[in-house]
Amino acid sequence: MTPPGDNRLRYVCSQCGVIHYQNPKLVVGAIPVWDQDGDTQVLLCRRAIEPRLGYWTLPAGFMENEETTADAALRETVEEAGANIQLHDLFSMMNVPHVHQVHLFYRATLLDLNYLAGIESLEVAMFTESTMPWKDIAFPTVTETLKHFFADMRKVREGAPFGFHARDIMKPMRAATE
Amino acid sequence: MTPPGDNRLRYVCSQCGVIHYQNPKLVVGAIPVWDQDGDTQVLLCRRAIEPRLGYWTLPAGFMENEETTADAALRETVEEAGANIQLHDLFSMMNVPHVHQVHLFYRATLLDLNYLAGIESLEVAMFTESTMPWKDIAFPTVTETLKHFFADMRKVREGAPFGFHARDIMKPMRAATE
Ligand SMILES: [Zn+2]
Ligand SMILES: [Zn+2]
Repeated sequence: MTPPGDNRLRYVCSQCGVIHYQNPKLVVGAIPVWDQDGDTQVLLCRRAIEPRLGYWTLPAGFMENEETTADAALRETVEEAGANIQLHDLFSMMNVPHVHQVHLFYRATLLDLNYLAGIESLEVAMFTESTMPWKDIAFPTVTETLKHFFADMRKVREGAPFGFHARDIMKPMRAATE
Repeated sequence: MTPPGDNRLRYVCSQCGVIHYQNPKLVVGAIPVWDQDGDTQVLLCRRAIEPRLGYWTLPAGFMENEETTADAALRETVEEAGANIQLHDLFSMMNVPHVHQVHLFYRATLLDLNYLAGIESLEVAMFTESTMPWKDIAFPTVTETLKHFFADMRKVREGAPFGFHARDIMKPMRAATE
């Protein structure tokens, strides 16, 4: 069943042997921000599911067919955090070739504080840069995105625009807390 | 075989009935640029394969596992145009939910003029904004990306940086020449 000229390893169905082409998946999420007396707080979810159960993450998940990337960021934020947000520009794109994923995060504004943990979250809470559980972040793409976000925030307060941050994470996802 | 709580349509293997989860695919390409006496030329490929056989496109194709998005842009440019390029920043991200795709294009510089059509291309050629075959571009994401690129080039010549352009194409891909 391998097409002529096709010399790559493919995913073969364990039941019937049919070759199913596999491509990297998009994981899309949001950076939901609430400004409290000039102090920037970011909403995180504590994961109720593996991988990285019990660790904190930005709301994010696999993009589905028929969605746009923005649709996916909004849906995941509702599903995991029950949060009402307004999306802004794309903020980061992180390649994770080791796990065949590309992670995208959009900046977002929380519209109210009526968030509520979904079934994939143990709890949802807001953190400032100094209260952020940096040692307990689930994935390095989230740590990188949050570091870039708080660094940009300092420049934005002085009049600069937010940047767009593209990075490649060339190590296993489990190395998050190294 | 449908997991509990799963209420989305899924791709079912026609041979064995196993459900294979489908997610949007990334199509990644480059905008290879050659500066000829101050006139910006962009390399296009004329497609030797369906869909859109005979129409012009930027070198681009499906991202593979184990690659980064930049790896994919470089590989596709070599495969389709035999071109040696240096990649720069990501320039555009176009959602095409109708066909379950997200298209990414990187700015790039052609390092020499030793390009050569690959087996998926009928020919490879360079065009300026005024000689560009605008009516015969294969896909609307390529048309949009090229329009943004030439518009940005005019600003770049006056000292502005290139932008990053995110768009959603909410119509069938075949509407390219409308
Ligand atoms: Zn199968
Ligand atoms: Zn099967």
